[in-house]
Amino acid sequence: MQNFVYQNTAKILFGRDQISSLSQEIALDKRVMIVYGGGSVKRNGVLKRVKDALQNTIVFEFGGVEANPHYETLMKAVDIVKQEKIDFLLAVGGGSVIDGTKFIAAAACYEGDAWDIVKSYGSVVQKALPIGCVLTLAATGSEMNNVSVVTKAATKDKLFFASPYIMPQFSILEPELTFTLPENQTANGVVDAFVHILEQYITYPVNAKVQDRLAEGLLNTLKEEGPKVLVSPEDYDARANIMWSATMALNGLLSTGTPADWATHLIGQEITGLYGLDHAQTLAIVMPAIWQYCRSEKAEKLAQYGSRVWDIPASDTETMAEQAIQATVKFFEEMGVKTHLSDYGLGEEIIPEIINKLEEHGHVALGEHSTITTEKVGEVLRLAL
Amino acid sequence: MQNFVYQNTAKILFGRDQISSLSQEIALDKRVMIVYGGGSVKRNGVLKRVKDALQNTIVFEFGGVEANPHYETLMKAVDIVKQEKIDFLLAVGGGSVIDGTKFIAAAACYEGDAWDIVKSYGSVVQKALPIGCVLTLAATGSEMNNVSVVTKAATKDKLFFASPYIMPQFSILEPELTFTLPENQTANGVVDAFVHILEQYITYPVNAKVQDRLAEGLLNTLKEEGPKVLVSPEDYDARANIMWSATMALNGLLSTGTPADWATHLIGQEITGLYGLDHAQTLAIVMPAIWQYCRSEKAEKLAQYGSRVWDIPASDTETMAEQAIQATVKFFEEMGVKTHLSDYGLGEEIIPEIINKLEEHGHVALGEHSTITTEKVGEVLRLAL
Repeated sequence: MQNFVYQNTAKILFGRDQISSLSQEIALDKRVMIVYGGGSVKRNGVLKRVKDALQNTIVFEFGGVEANPHYETLMKAVDIVKQEKIDFLLAVGGGSVIDGTKFIAAAACYEGDAWDIVKSYGSVVQKALPIGCVLTLAATGSEMNNVSVVTKAATKDKLFFASPYIMPQFSILEPELTFTLPENQTANGVVDAFVHILEQYITYPVNAKVQDRLAEGLLNTLKEEGPKVLVSPEDYDARANIMWSATMALNGLLSTGTPADWATHLIGQEITGLYGLDHAQTLAIVMPAIWQYCRSEKAEKLAQYGSRVWDIPASDTETMAEQAIQATVKFFEEMGVKTHLSDYGLGEEIIPEIINKLEEHGHVALGEHSTITTEKVGEVLRLAL
Repeated sequence: MQNFVYQNTAKILFGRDQISSLSQEIALDKRVMIVYGGGSVKRNGVLKRVKDALQNTIVFEFGGVEANPHYETLMKAVDIVKQEKIDFLLAVGGGSVIDGTKFIAAAACYEGDAWDIVKSYGSVVQKALPIGCVLTLAATGSEMNNVSVVTKAATKDKLFFASPYIMPQFSILEPELTFTLPENQTANGVVDAFVHILEQYITYPVNAKVQDRLAEGLLNTLKEEGPKVLVSPEDYDARANIMWSATMALNGLLSTGTPADWATHLIGQEITGLYGLDHAQTLAIVMPAIWQYCRSEKAEKLAQYGSRVWDIPASDTETMAEQAIQATVKFFEEMGVKTHLSDYGLGEEIIPEIINKLEEHGHVALGEHSTITTEKVGEVLRLAL
C-alpha cells in the first residue's frame, strides 16, 4: 500500500424526506442562491420542496446550467452573486449543476480572470463561497468531493479543477428524486460511477486489500442494481444502493494508497468538449480501448476484477483479462450505452483534433505509468472505432 | 436501506514516516500535551520521533494511561492541562490512550463533575480541546471516531461516551509502529476490529449492499492478514491492511443506513470493568454466545457472512448460520484469543454481578431489536461458560 492523506469533511444526509433538513444546514442569515439546470426540478416539484424548506431564508434562483456546464453561463451567475451579495450556494441537480456551482463559488471570490481557476487546475483558488447540494442524479460523485469539470463553449475546452475550498459542506441524497429520470440518464449515471471505480482500481496491484474490496463491492452493487432500475425505476433500495455507490466511488476512499489511471476521463473529456457526446458515452468508448492497449500492464488487476465481479473462472491471467474486458463491454451495452465511436457517427478523423486538444491542455502522458503519450492516444482511439 | 446522516472530518495521514508531518498539523503557538501509556513509546523511540517533530512547539508530557483508561488517572492530566493552559492534546498510543485523551479534552472544558460526561453518554459535552493522534496499535478505531470508553476504577464502571467535539482533528497511522507489538496485543487488535465490523453487520438484512460488502471486504482482509502477522510481525502490507481495516471498521461508514447490535460490547464492557479481562477477550467470549442465543433472528446475515467470508457452501440458512458461528470461534482461537469464560477462570457466579452492573448502567434492553433483557443476558452468558 502506498502512503496517503485522506480527509473528507462533507456531511451526507441520505434517505427519504431529507430536504426538510435544509433549514438546519443553512444559517438563517445567509443570502442563498439556488443553482439548477434545465428546469426538471421545477416540473417534478423538487425546487418547490427546497424553497418551502428555506421559507425563512432570503433565496435567489439561477436556472439554466447545462450538461457539461459552460463557463459562459456560470459567469452570469457569478455576476448576480456579486451584485446580490450572495453568501451561500445551493446546487439542486446532478453532477453538472454541482460542478457549475463549485466554479461559481470559487469564481465569485477570485479577483483575476476566472478562467485562471480552470487553467491552473484550481491551484489559484484561495477562497470560495460555502456550498450545499441536493442531488437529483446518481453518477458523478461531485456531491462528496472537491473536483469540478467546466466547459468553455467558445473554445470547446472541457477541463477539471480541484480545490479543498469547493468541497460541499453538506449534500442531501434522496434516492426517490431519481425515480423520474429519463432512462438514458439513469444508465449514463451507472456507467459513469462504474468507470470512476475502474479508473482507481484497474491499474497494477499494490496489495491494498481494503481499497480493492471496496471497489469490487461497489462494482458488484452497480452491476446488480443498474439493470434493475432500467426495468423498475421506482425500486427504492436499488436506487439507494446505486446512489450511495456513486457517491462512495469518488469520495477519495478508493484512491487512498493506490495508483490511479484517469486516461479514459482525460481522453473522454476532449470527445465531449469537441463533439458533445454524453460524458458516460465517452467513457464507455475509451475505457475498453485503453484496456486493450494496456492489457499486459493491467492484466493482473483485470483478472482479479473478472474473477470477483464477473465470476470469470480461474485460468491464465491474459485470458481472464480479455474476458473481463468483454464482460465490461457487454455490461455497458446492456445498460444501453454504446461502446464504439462509430455508434455515435464518429471515426478516425477525430484523432488529430483529440490529440491537439490533449496537447493544448498539457495532457501528454496519461495512465498510471504516465506512458500513454498523445501519439499512443491515436492507437488507443483506433481500437475504439 | 435506512435513512442516515454521515460526516467524519478526521484527517488521516497513513504510511511510512508520517510523524514528521506533525509540525504542519499542529500550529506553532499551541501548548501541546503528549499523552501516552505505559512507556513502550519511550522504549521504541516513537516518543522521541514525536518530540523531534515538535521541537519548535511547547510540549508537556503525561504518561501512565493504563489499558481501559482510568478516570482517576485521567483527572490528574486534566489538572495539569488547566494549570499549564494546554490547548492541544496529542495522543501517542493505542485505543486506550486515545480514549483517555478524548476524556481529558472534554473534561478540561467542563465546569461540573467530570464524571457527568460519562454518565450522560457525552450529551453534556459542549466543548473540548483539539486532539491529534499518533496510533501505535490497530484495533479500536478510536483514531477516526467520536467515541471514548473510560473506566472508574473505584466502582469498576467501564462506560462509553460520544460527542462530536472529541473527534480527532488528525490521526497519524504508521503501520511500522505495530511491528514490535507483543503478539497478544496484535491478536487482540485483530479480534477487536473484527467484532466491531460484526456488531454492525450481523443483524437483519436491510438491503444495504455497499455497507454489507464493505463489511465483508474488511472481514476478509482481517481474516487473511491477521494470522500472517502472528508469523511475520514485520510484514508491512499485512500490517497496513490490518491498520486501515481497523480504522475503517469504526469510522461510521459501516453503520450508515443499517441496524447495529452492540450487545456484545455492552456485556463485554462489564466483564472487563469487573474482572479485568482484555477487551478483545470479552468480545471473543460474548459474541458467539449472543449469536447462538439469537441465531434464528440473525440467521440470514450469518449465512451471508458464512458464504462470503468463510466460503461456506450453500445449504439451508440455519446450517450455514451455525457453520459461520463455528468458523468465527475457530478464527478467534487460532488468533490465540480464547472464547469461553472458563478459559479465564470465570464461571456462572459472575452472572448476577454482570446483570447488576448492566441494570445500574441502564443497559437493560440490548441488541438490534432491544429484546435482550438482563434476564436473557444470564442465558447468553450460560452459553459462554
